[in-house]
Amino acid sequence: MKKTVLLTIQYDGSKFHGWQRQPGECTAQGKLEEVLSEICCQDIKVDGTSRTDAGVHALGQRATFAGDFSIPVENIKKAVNDMLSKGATYKGKSGAMRIIKAEEVPEGFHARFNSVGKRYRYLIDCAKEIDLFNRNYVYALPEDLDAEAMKEAAKNIIGTHDFACFQAAGGNPQETTVRTIYSIDVDKDGDLISIEVTGDGFLYNMVRIIVGTLVEVGQGKKVPKDVEGIIKSCDRTLAGFTAPAEGLYLEKVFYEKQEELWKE
Amino acid sequence: MKKTVLLTIQYDGSKFHGWQRQPGECTAQGKLEEVLSEICCQDIKVDGTSRTDAGVHALGQRATFAGDFSIPVENIKKAVNDMLSKGATYKGKSGAMRIIKAEEVPEGFHARFNSVGKRYRYLIDCAKEIDLFNRNYVYALPEDLDAEAMKEAAKNIIGTHDFACFQAAGGNPQETTVRTIYSIDVDKDGDLISIEVTGDGFLYNMVRIIVGTLVEVGQGKKVPKDVEGIIKSCDRTLAGFTAPAEGLYLEKVFYEKQEELWKE
Repeated sequence: MKKTVLLTIQYDGSKFHGWQRQPGECTAQGKLEEVLSEICCQDIKVDGTSRTDAGVHALGQRATFAGDFSIPVENIKKAVNDMLSKGATYKGKSGAMRIIKAEEVPEGFHARFNSVGKRYRYLIDCAKEIDLFNRNYVYALPEDLDAEAMKEAAKNIIGTHDFACFQAAGGNPQETTVRTIYSIDVDKDGDLISIEVTGDGFLYNMVRIIVGTLVEVGQGKKVPKDVEGIIKSCDRTLAGFTAPAEGLYLEKVFYEKQEELWKE
Repeated sequence: MKKTVLLTIQYDGSKFHGWQRQPGECTAQGKLEEVLSEICCQDIKVDGTSRTDAGVHALGQRATFAGDFSIPVENIKKAVNDMLSKGATYKGKSGAMRIIKAEEVPEGFHARFNSVGKRYRYLIDCAKEIDLFNRNYVYALPEDLDAEAMKEAAKNIIGTHDFACFQAAGGNPQETTVRTIYSIDVDKDGDLISIEVTGDGFLYNMVRIIVGTLVEVGQGKKVPKDVEGIIKSCDRTLAGFTAPAEGLYLEKVFYEKQEELWKE
């Protein structure tokens, strides 16, 4: 009998050439399809919620796939993780991806089309000495950033706006550049600045450009109220730089009603 | 004029096939020699203090090299680090090694022969959920270990003993298997157990076998006083397993008098 399965996935983006399958590249989607096809004894294609770029990490990526396979859904998590962790620990890709949860969902459920929102987290390490062991997991920026100004600037982004200013060239064509950002939290804990952004959808590189813009506020190159004008301009060149991939984590995907998201 | 330089080096062991140069493999020594040879415009060979295995990290590896080169010693750190950090951040080896200090030392000074002691640190993560992002930087062992018993067991190791029981096959031949361990500190902080071992020298895989033995005490497979008998037996088969490379860090190399080490 045909089953549809929703996966929750973590991966270390520094070990994959992004989510999306590409010939000749080790991608998260490609690796997952390879493993699932072996476990399910048939050609499996997965649909992910977010096409994360190379270097971007996932704490809670979601993906769906369907097929008429004999393995019980409750065994999929262990079977996939056993295959993903095979091999020597120090040599590379093994262990860089893991299934957190596998659950059966109604036929037709789609990881991306059924999602109503996503949350990303971005980590900036402002320590004077760059931590070698964290180089792939934070954006190392050894400067004193004004986190209070960044918090103030972030308030301008919350709400429903045309965010064309925060869209990079090169993504898939979008019907509209209007999106709703439910919340942005900027937290400073010692040298670490964490920026959490929750929205109904994101344009190409939108979180990384928002972070770059907030960093320029934190550096004093922009003032918080500039952000309102930048959004109104719809002009990418007025926004900040694109913060590097290594600081970005896809944290959570939401499938509940959008109203719930405002409360999270 | 010929100069001798002592380097202090950090590296992420998960990105190198160990310290020692090997044809066709990316090793820390090999990479460093390649970069230094380019900077010094001559063939440079470096001597390291510790031949760390594949997967083992260094916070304070030391290495010496000598040559008649024109670059001022105070410029070596920046020149090497600039070359080591070149290239894309997500694709692999760049940024996985860094010079912390470069200092001129008297001719004939040798990173290994002049050292009087070393300190290693070993990290065990006992969290129930394995942290994907830390998989190359701790030994993930999701069990409740009795850290108090491990501390008690460690006391038996301090002092001057024949440590043949803690020596793996495959290392360089040693004149003697007698070594002095100045201190072993076992600390538990939440789920993380840290074991710091300071000694005048270490046999092949010695720290990893000590850790494996202490883990077996922490699991209740051995009792603390067993360790005294294990050392006296000089029998490798009575000691514990070899703990995996990813938890091990070469922390510090000492060049001062040995008496100082007892006080550290």
